Amino acid sequence: MSSSFGQLFRISTFGESHCKGVGVIVDGVPAGLALTEADIQPQLSRRRPGQSSLTTPRDEADKVIIQSGTEFGLTLGTPISMFVANQDQRPADYGEMARIPRPSHADYTYMAKYGIKASSGGGRSSARETIGRVAGGAVAEKILRHNYGVEIVAWVSAVGSIETDTVDMATVTREQVDQSIVRCPDEATAVAMTERIEHVRDAADSTGGVVTCVCRHVPAGWGEPVFDKLEALLAHAMLSIPATKGIEIGSGFGGTRMLGSAHNDPFVMKNGKLGTVTNYSGGIQGGISNGENIYFRVAFKPPATIGSTQTTATFDGESAKLKAKGRHDPCVVPRAVPIVEAMAALVLADVAMRQEARAAFVR
Amino acid sequence: MSSSFGQLFRISTFGESHCKGVGVIVDGVPAGLALTEADIQPQLSRRRPGQSSLTTPRDEADKVIIQSGTEFGLTLGTPISMFVANQDQRPADYGEMARIPRPSHADYTYMAKYGIKASSGGGRSSARETIGRVAGGAVAEKILRHNYGVEIVAWVSAVGSIETDTVDMATVTREQVDQSIVRCPDEATAVAMTERIEHVRDAADSTGGVVTCVCRHVPAGWGEPVFDKLEALLAHAMLSIPATKGIEIGSGFGGTRMLGSAHNDPFVMKNGKLGTVTNYSGGIQGGISNGENIYFRVAFKPPATIGSTQTTATFDGESAKLKAKGRHDPCVVPRAVPIVEAMAALVLADVAMRQEARAAFVR
Amino acid sequence: MSSSFGQLFRISTFGESHCKGVGVIVDGVPAGLALTEADIQPQLSRRRPGQSSLTTPRDEADKVIIQSGTEFGLTLGTPISMFVANQDQRPADYGEMARIPRPSHADYTYMAKYGIKASSGGGRSSARETIGRVAGGAVAEKILRHNYGVEIVAWVSAVGSIETDTVDMATVTREQVDQSIVRCPDEATAVAMTERIEHVRDAADSTGGVVTCVCRHVPAGWGEPVFDKLEALLAHAMLSIPATKGIEIGSGFGGTRMLGSAHNDPFVMKNGKLGTVTNYSGGIQGGISNGENIYFRVAFKPPATIGSTQTTATFDGESAKLKAKGRHDPCVVPRAVPIVEAMAALVLADVAMRQEARAAFVR
Amino acid sequence: MSSSFGQLFRISTFGESHCKGVGVIVDGVPAGLALTEADIQPQLSRRRPGQSSLTTPRDEADKVIIQSGTEFGLTLGTPISMFVANQDQRPADYGEMARIPRPSHADYTYMAKYGIKASSGGGRSSARETIGRVAGGAVAEKILRHNYGVEIVAWVSAVGSIETDTVDMATVTREQVDQSIVRCPDEATAVAMTERIEHVRDAADSTGGVVTCVCRHVPAGWGEPVFDKLEALLAHAMLSIPATKGIEIGSGFGGTRMLGSAHNDPFVMKNGKLGTVTNYSGGIQGGISNGENIYFRVAFKPPATIGSTQTTATFDGESAKLKAKGRHDPCVVPRAVPIVEAMAALVLADVAMRQEARAAFVR
Repeated sequence: MSSSFGQLFRISTFGESHCKGVGVIVDGVPAGLALTEADIQPQLSRRRPGQSSLTTPRDEADKVIIQSGTEFGLTLGTPISMFVANQDQRPADYGEMARIPRPSHADYTYMAKYGIKASSGGGRSSARETIGRVAGGAVAEKILRHNYGVEIVAWVSAVGSIETDTVDMATVTREQVDQSIVRCPDEATAVAMTERIEHVRDAADSTGGVVTCVCRHVPAGWGEPVFDKLEALLAHAMLSIPATKGIEIGSGFGGTRMLGSAHNDPFVMKNGKLGTVTNYSGGIQGGISNGENIYFRVAFKPPATIGSTQTTATFDGESAKLKAKGRHDPCVVPRAVPIVEAMAALVLADVAMRQEARAAFVR
Repeated sequence: MSSSFGQLFRISTFGESHCKGVGVIVDGVPAGLALTEADIQPQLSRRRPGQSSLTTPRDEADKVIIQSGTEFGLTLGTPISMFVANQDQRPADYGEMARIPRPSHADYTYMAKYGIKASSGGGRSSARETIGRVAGGAVAEKILRHNYGVEIVAWVSAVGSIETDTVDMATVTREQVDQSIVRCPDEATAVAMTERIEHVRDAADSTGGVVTCVCRHVPAGWGEPVFDKLEALLAHAMLSIPATKGIEIGSGFGGTRMLGSAHNDPFVMKNGKLGTVTNYSGGIQGGISNGENIYFRVAFKPPATIGSTQTTATFDGESAKLKAKGRHDPCVVPRAVPIVEAMAALVLADVAMRQEARAAFVR
Repeated sequence: MSSSFGQLFRISTFGESHCKGVGVIVDGVPAGLALTEADIQPQLSRRRPGQSSLTTPRDEADKVIIQSGTEFGLTLGTPISMFVANQDQRPADYGEMARIPRPSHADYTYMAKYGIKASSGGGRSSARETIGRVAGGAVAEKILRHNYGVEIVAWVSAVGSIETDTVDMATVTREQVDQSIVRCPDEATAVAMTERIEHVRDAADSTGGVVTCVCRHVPAGWGEPVFDKLEALLAHAMLSIPATKGIEIGSGFGGTRMLGSAHNDPFVMKNGKLGTVTNYSGGIQGGISNGENIYFRVAFKPPATIGSTQTTATFDGESAKLKAKGRHDPCVVPRAVPIVEAMAALVLADVAMRQEARAAFVR
Repeated sequence: MSSSFGQLFRISTFGESHCKGVGVIVDGVPAGLALTEADIQPQLSRRRPGQSSLTTPRDEADKVIIQSGTEFGLTLGTPISMFVANQDQRPADYGEMARIPRPSHADYTYMAKYGIKASSGGGRSSARETIGRVAGGAVAEKILRHNYGVEIVAWVSAVGSIETDTVDMATVTREQVDQSIVRCPDEATAVAMTERIEHVRDAADSTGGVVTCVCRHVPAGWGEPVFDKLEALLAHAMLSIPATKGIEIGSGFGGTRMLGSAHNDPFVMKNGKLGTVTNYSGGIQGGISNGENIYFRVAFKPPATIGSTQTTATFDGESAKLKAKGRHDPCVVPRAVPIVEAMAALVLADVAMRQEARAAFVR
């Protein structure tokens, strides 16, 4: 297990799908920051199951409680512990799966690794694990916004083959994103995506998708060469989210098909400081932010747990048919949006502190 | 700076392009392993500049010296320090670039971060930094091969728009990869790729490409949920390599367009243990290896330093034309192959040790 | 803040004296270990306030709840989160101290560091912070005992100038230690110590003391040169406990006055393996356990919070008289015994896992 | 192996007694600091063997070379790699010890841990390992002095039973310390100490001693509760030095015999800010510096390698007599002085950066 993330701004998460609850400790938060549950709850509510017809019907209020680290609404500089109780547990739903590992789920590999399996729900591979990330990310985000004006906005840019590339990264807001339950700010595409998810849901199947994220107003100079380059940390963060299969930053895989003369971002004066004319770099050069928008795309596979019958094998290797019960998302990307934002915020808060440490240490 | 990678099997690299040399300390290597420079040099030679007409003409022998950690050809369990001297330095080539940051290179961001720049060659953003990785990776790889039979093979799967998808992951060898100077084991495609690189080189331009890598015979159970999932660590490792813009593991971005019913990998008995019929998962489920081949693709952008004239700005924001001197690769992927292999080996050695620690601790 | 300890077996604690509660996440616990609250509670009860006439009258049941990481009484290999609610809070007691930093307490330095102070109770410098350590240590200890037969026993060896050196390290048990409320297994000395503490308590004063700890049956080979030598980790662990001022291992400061010819521990066969005739080394040589008993002494200063009047200054520098209210221990060592044991267990579990990782990695 | 120390200001050392050389990588050094070998050499020369009649006659120039991380005499913000070649190697001296582990040395425990032993000289347990610490510490110290005016001075306060307590911590300088070859600034005591060491040396024996260290002008607010309290990090650092057996900070073990009313350090205005009348706390309260002098004492045992005959056992358990050859110090404390200073500087640089990161992150 490695349930901590970050060096100076650091979260440690805990909790499985079917224990008493899930939560997080956030260490490294400076003192004197105004912080209450009201700062945390909105992103948790965007993440919670049961929020729309597109998500799992498992219904959890996901009310967060701050257990330590604040007093009179201000942070103390001490670890902030947050807890969300599990409520709507139905372990009985998982009976057959004790015998048959779900294809492409973590049932088999958890058994291979730990020699034991949680009776249900995949233990730490459950999506509920991400609650701690979102709660921690909300703290990071508040600091980033307050101190540097950083804005982080993610949205659904693809559901299966239905894609949008018309979202304006420079201006898109969370309000625009949330205007559709699928969280795609391109209205027409959102309708098509929604229909697509409803279709696969009704077919007891699932579909993949892509979340795109932009981080605006990140100052130049964040990111730690050599091994903690900003893109490396973002990749680490994003591919630690369940169901992710890839990330591309800036021009990504498309950029591999370009010539250097076209791909290079020429420098130019913008608002009194050096900026770039184009932004194929995605706001990062040599592992360090350059002041332009940081953007990246994260690939999410179709959820492994589906209601239709699959021919597979039991843990013992006997051929078996599995028709998963339980309540699951037909497509994870609408709920993944706040998780991607949270992980981006956690990375940025950490590299910000590391850069501040260096900057303050030179006189 | 964050020049270390790995938790139990850990490298710390040092050195810039134009100082006395570059190197690495490898910590966590067990005692009693046969190890000499002959184990390290082959991968360094595959990485070295000047090895073919497709690479930078900067000519470095890149002879490695083991400075500590072995005696009589055996490891002592102590840190292995390895050093490669810099020889063919021509800092004078970089004169103009002191005034004009190269577009899409690290010149500007290093200045923003450190407030200083190395006189030449990009400091730690230089490709020479990767020598330490390759040397460290060679040690990791030897242990993985000896203890577990792990095989790691990477190759060039795309140069610009020229791609191959006919390489057999189950059997491809480094010997096959090295039959072409472009390091693509698909002969016909290799010819086209080579011509393409020569073409952009002659046009004083550059091109991107993709490296694909497979890791065979990785036991089930490696990788550390939640934040050090195997795909997360591989993503971190790969996106810390200079010029990378993306990674996809298993089905990757293509998998986002599939239905769950098609994407799921059903279980089946194979050679007396549970395996999967298909492998869209890329050998990793829930962040843990499942015993199938691990494979992934890494996107490399076209090199930023090109010989043709670019319109850009000086550090001071004045419009300027830059025609880069110096000796640079028109395409990095042929030389990136051993670097990708090295980073994969470093990740696997570390998660292997972490899993062994756990396994031995249960009785 | 740095609220985590350990590399592979790792605890992260949270909670202040006057928030909702305190707790710990234990990461790195292997799966399949029988574990319930009954394994944790005994050591917490030995640590809890209000347990005897020698401790603070603040009365806390300190009932621990396991929130995650186990199912059906077995560990899952996932993070174990444990929580203890705060109950008997009386922040009003601390009113005057908001203006006057208690001499030799953390009030002033917390303000210097964080620019804020918890309204009461010293925030994370409160002794309640150690609850998480004791809970985490109980898990570590159970594994060490089960896997290796390790026994850890600490006791009070000095209160002020009243000392004992007659305790037999080879045989002393926790039952013997607990026969007196002062936790000194030397009966006559225990009586004197108890009287001494009662005397200073009645004088509204406080006294220091020493805790000695022995770890038996630690296998040879634990501890990580160079910087994580076993004595270095123990020293780190022990001096992170509130109110500690020193540690000596084996012969300690007394050993500095010996000749090498007398201090050296000659080797000899014992029970079929190499042991030492004497044990001035304290079971550690070159930072690595040698199979002999590990023992060390930890110095605890007299508690800073005392009821008698002190002449000091306010935060603003004005001369002031402080007569602390609140409920505090006149001497911390009786309750420090399980804390010292816990920290020793946490260090040993971590170095055990690190050594197992290495050992398993050589074939 | 764990050959790295520090979180933000971090050293990684390498090298054994009888390989090509020893060295260090220093990561986290800010850019733009003037730094050449001349900043490093003085402390290495104070550490080097052969410097006086009191030290081992092994004669090493210990000339340091900066291999990377600087250009034109300024740091680049990249890792600083420093190397010192081994010269005067005489492995033949160690022949008999291949069969007989030296009592109280690391020969036996290294074999237990690694299953192999360096042919000679104790591998990483050799005092030569400390060269990397001293080189890294010199960099840390330069920054601390320049940025904050921190002064670190250590001296020999005891050799065997010969002690001094008359050194004025507020004013003692390295020049005063170096006026005697034993490095005790109390002249009369220095003479007695020198004679004592010569006496044990001539008797082919060894003696222990104590090094005291003061750190002046450390700002209030450094040190990271809970687990990285300043005293905990200092204890970790000091007990990682070979041959150490204990540390006490401020009043230390003596403080355990005091009453709280006497031990508490009352606050008072000093030079316009809050200070303390006495300093039993040793400049640290609640794990955080309070602005007063930080001071501590480190216990060093008598060196294990002595020339007189010892009755002991072979690795195989047979009784044997060992008369160690080789060249060894009869007392390590004179040469330990710069090592203690270096480790103190490394701790302080790291906590300084951590505090700067926090401070800059609050606005």
